[in-house]
Amino acid sequence: MAVDTAPDLLPAILQEIAAEARASRDRGKVADYIPELAAIDPDQFAIAIARPGQPTLTAGDAAVPFSIQSVSKLFMLALALGRLGDRLWNRVGREPSGHSFDSMLLLELEKGRPRNPFINAGAIVTTDAVLEGATPREALGALLRFIRAAAGDEAIHINDRVAASETTTGHRNFALAHYLRSHGNLSNPPEMTLGTYFHQCAVEMTCTQLANAGLFLVGGAGAPRLVSQARIRRINALMMTCGHYDGSGDYAFRVGLPGKSGVGGGILTIVPGVASVAVWSPGLNHYGNSHLGTQAMERLAARTGWSVFGPDGGV
Amino acid sequence: MAVDTAPDLLPAILQEIAAEARASRDRGKVADYIPELAAIDPDQFAIAIARPGQPTLTAGDAAVPFSIQSVSKLFMLALALGRLGDRLWNRVGREPSGHSFDSMLLLELEKGRPRNPFINAGAIVTTDAVLEGATPREALGALLRFIRAAAGDEAIHINDRVAASETTTGHRNFALAHYLRSHGNLSNPPEMTLGTYFHQCAVEMTCTQLANAGLFLVGGAGAPRLVSQARIRRINALMMTCGHYDGSGDYAFRVGLPGKSGVGGGILTIVPGVASVAVWSPGLNHYGNSHLGTQAMERLAARTGWSVFGPDGGV
Amino acid sequence: MAVDTAPDLLPAILQEIAAEARASRDRGKVADYIPELAAIDPDQFAIAIARPGQPTLTAGDAAVPFSIQSVSKLFMLALALGRLGDRLWNRVGREPSGHSFDSMLLLELEKGRPRNPFINAGAIVTTDAVLEGATPREALGALLRFIRAAAGDEAIHINDRVAASETTTGHRNFALAHYLRSHGNLSNPPEMTLGTYFHQCAVEMTCTQLANAGLFLVGGAGAPRLVSQARIRRINALMMTCGHYDGSGDYAFRVGLPGKSGVGGGILTIVPGVASVAVWSPGLNHYGNSHLGTQAMERLAARTGWSVFGPDGGV
Amino acid sequence: MAVDTAPDLLPAILQEIAAEARASRDRGKVADYIPELAAIDPDQFAIAIARPGQPTLTAGDAAVPFSIQSVSKLFMLALALGRLGDRLWNRVGREPSGHSFDSMLLLELEKGRPRNPFINAGAIVTTDAVLEGATPREALGALLRFIRAAAGDEAIHINDRVAASETTTGHRNFALAHYLRSHGNLSNPPEMTLGTYFHQCAVEMTCTQLANAGLFLVGGAGAPRLVSQARIRRINALMMTCGHYDGSGDYAFRVGLPGKSGVGGGILTIVPGVASVAVWSPGLNHYGNSHLGTQAMERLAARTGWSVFGPDGGV
Repeated sequence: MAVDTAPDLLPAILQEIAAEARASRDRGKVADYIPELAAIDPDQFAIAIARPGQPTLTAGDAAVPFSIQSVSKLFMLALALGRLGDRLWNRVGREPSGHSFDSMLLLELEKGRPRNPFINAGAIVTTDAVLEGATPREALGALLRFIRAAAGDEAIHINDRVAASETTTGHRNFALAHYLRSHGNLSNPPEMTLGTYFHQCAVEMTCTQLANAGLFLVGGAGAPRLVSQARIRRINALMMTCGHYDGSGDYAFRVGLPGKSGVGGGILTIVPGVASVAVWSPGLNHYGNSHLGTQAMERLAARTGWSVFGPDGGV
Repeated sequence: MAVDTAPDLLPAILQEIAAEARASRDRGKVADYIPELAAIDPDQFAIAIARPGQPTLTAGDAAVPFSIQSVSKLFMLALALGRLGDRLWNRVGREPSGHSFDSMLLLELEKGRPRNPFINAGAIVTTDAVLEGATPREALGALLRFIRAAAGDEAIHINDRVAASETTTGHRNFALAHYLRSHGNLSNPPEMTLGTYFHQCAVEMTCTQLANAGLFLVGGAGAPRLVSQARIRRINALMMTCGHYDGSGDYAFRVGLPGKSGVGGGILTIVPGVASVAVWSPGLNHYGNSHLGTQAMERLAARTGWSVFGPDGGV
Repeated sequence: MAVDTAPDLLPAILQEIAAEARASRDRGKVADYIPELAAIDPDQFAIAIARPGQPTLTAGDAAVPFSIQSVSKLFMLALALGRLGDRLWNRVGREPSGHSFDSMLLLELEKGRPRNPFINAGAIVTTDAVLEGATPREALGALLRFIRAAAGDEAIHINDRVAASETTTGHRNFALAHYLRSHGNLSNPPEMTLGTYFHQCAVEMTCTQLANAGLFLVGGAGAPRLVSQARIRRINALMMTCGHYDGSGDYAFRVGLPGKSGVGGGILTIVPGVASVAVWSPGLNHYGNSHLGTQAMERLAARTGWSVFGPDGGV
Repeated sequence: MAVDTAPDLLPAILQEIAAEARASRDRGKVADYIPELAAIDPDQFAIAIARPGQPTLTAGDAAVPFSIQSVSKLFMLALALGRLGDRLWNRVGREPSGHSFDSMLLLELEKGRPRNPFINAGAIVTTDAVLEGATPREALGALLRFIRAAAGDEAIHINDRVAASETTTGHRNFALAHYLRSHGNLSNPPEMTLGTYFHQCAVEMTCTQLANAGLFLVGGAGAPRLVSQARIRRINALMMTCGHYDGSGDYAFRVGLPGKSGVGGGILTIVPGVASVAVWSPGLNHYGNSHLGTQAMERLAARTGWSVFGPDGGV
């Protein structure tokens, strides 16, 4: 648990970080393999901090909706664990992969068992597991209800155009799904599981909504109780070791907090017991994580002292 | 930071955990590739908890010295960072490898740059870096001084027989060192760097000494100040994502605390701001980490509520 | 060139080999991943030898049609080279892969460029190349015309049930095709290229027909001239180094002749300047090549002296 | 067997090829990782053709001695097969590796069993096998006697300076040897086996001597009978599929004859039943095979019609 030492300084820190991001020249590279995302204006940046029982603080373009993409894997994982419990781990591991988010190398060496639920192959398996006994419509409905309840916002929706765009171009994901199926680790037709997966990735949220939606992983008094305390810890552990693909170690080293990124440029970061932080900037670093978002989180952690590895909350 | 909620219950919890370990039938498998270690009695178990400014609590065989092996990588890393600072990261990464502790696969794909300082290849590079401008004797002297200062115990020493045993049989490490050298990522002759490396791994400590030696990573009032606060966080982050080889994700998931294991059966775990915990039991699981030690730490974390991912210290 | 030393002994040698195959207890394992093939009676064996200008010799079940599967890659390669010439090599290599026929490992490391046209990924690219400027129906028509002309037999056809069976279950091939497409090395939709590919694999031939169809690669007087002499040599070279997947070295070592196998249990082997030999037995060895077929070819080569590596035809 | 169609044209063809090589601008890159070889003048080229019972034809610098390096693996393999017979195959495979000559990737995946005796790891095992029951001096003595007998030339010797140079710098080979030893696939201390291996690679020969030394693999009347006919075929088969590392497929495709290359720039190629051809030019292509040497062999094969895959000797 990190200690929330200086809450009254937070608004100024957020403005400062947003100003620095706006002034940055190197903004990374917008993901171009999903046509609908390639057109996003890279000059956007937002940050939002939600704390249980307190107003959400924001800076920058925090009211602009963006595609949360792989951040959705977090919500689908929570949903899957709620439905299947530890049975899920029969089909997917809990280890960092050491390879890129869409790598097939380990999947071949390990005979179709993905390393963790946050790389694409693992998230496809998670989605497939939720589709046991649920239609795609029902599964996506359950996911939206979960996210809306977490965020306390009924307006959150799926952008069908983005989902359709990825269905047309997501050949790497089709390769992963068919490969999983060839090893018997996909129960449904690849098209069905991927259809659901692409829609789940196409959830759109603003930074404010995303920060709020992360509160259930903060825990403590005033946070929504959607999963058990034990599960909160485990999901946070997975975010720490696996949440940024083969850049997870770097994020833990620089930021020191569990987080999950998406190629839409969003990152959700949890300060256990204290806050949920969402950042968004569309340009990506070479791991496929938001370049300015990671930088902003590094600055926020340094200036607030928030870190799960700190002895005393940064004093 | 975790909260130290019930210090007065700790002695009873430790006794309970030691009793459970003693009663366990599945004790894992003692490492057999270092002849001197293969002869260790597998029926041993110890646990020790050190807290800044308080007496160290122990249970089991906490006064029996054992070979700390790869736990030494932690101390050598701290020493190397103190001497070279961030220059070290030019030669070694900060990412989990996803492969076993002595794998050559990623080392080949990534042209001789080890993934992190806690797999063998990375630790060999760390040792080699400390040997810049120091003889092996000086480097090992500095390491011993560091560990003795951290533990507050001048009796800690290196077991030369274990070092000699590994020099004769450590062909996998020779392979790694020569491979690193072939890529220009070893400044000294492999024999020299490995001679130092094998001696560093052959440091012997009791569980009590090891728990005490970990206090510098706990931080907070009363802990020895051997490295800066910023560095404490970063070393803890590396322990969390990389400290148990390709079982790091599992340890984070089950225990929720940064730790570093060795094939001698020891594990050092940090509860930031609260405690340093050492466990020892010689039998290993298939990742090469102590089987009963991991189990004991999982129980300790569950019963104390200690976890960097918990919202409120487990209350 | 091998020397055809003892043609009058051939009928007796064939009968002997067929008798030995029939008496064999270890017949390998019939491919079970294509449902239509899993039902084949494993107790079948056939061998046929075609020589330019001479009657085709046979033994065993040489009139039973079987699915030629990957042997078809040979004919499609000849067709593709005829249409595209050396442009084909921009998209696929000419090296043995050292990995199994459906491996994705090298395909990932080499960014979607298959090692050779005889592993699945490479054959899918070859088929895709033939589909430039041709509909699937036209491409398959051209392939059938080529095979029928080579074999001098208009009755050769495609088994639609086998093709349909593989379309339903061929997830590994779908994975490869989507992966190729994600790297821009597939011009057509994966479904279209694979539809064609599965139909090409579903060509049915008897051993007699297959031996006759191989005559165009034997060359010399009396052989059908479907491709140039230079191309005959190059296709034979590819068969030698890549024709049996990661068992190619073993086939070259034991048989000493260029060949191409299929999971239907057929193998076509060329004795340059002398003969085309087809064997068929459905049970496969662990490389996915006909177990008894390989054994029969090893015996045939030993007894006839046929080998491209022999100094004097085995005298 | 290839047919020797136009022997009287050979001298002119050789002069022509040597002239073309001399005029070539792109000469490849001299191996720089063995200091003694890095200093070689790249502007040298030689070709020599030996035929049983006929005078050896040469062009270019055919009297200049060069380091045969990995071509020696061929002679050591013949020696090892003579001593151990098929027992050798318990320790090393017969398949192309698909990876570079000093790759560790497959060696790790396949637990220390090298793919074939022509990549470094496999040749180290072959040498180690010959050292069973022989001292290094005896093994090297036997190798020299074999080569001298094959070439009919007692002057052939080992260059100790080159051997010493490689002992100092051959870290990749030390890595391979220690790795093999860690898997129990090396019977002798790595230093001893590698000492022998480096001396074997340091055999020096002229192109004329090398062509003559290859005659035992040509077979037929008048060729030295150092190994059996069956073994000649098998060694030629291994040269065809594995003789040029991950460029073996390319050599088979372009030249169509079994060959073995060395990083000293030499290539020995066998035309079964007809001739043994040695070429030498120090500059290497990206596979580590002689650039001009490969080109020269491609031209020689095209102009003579020599190819094991040709129907009629190139008419």
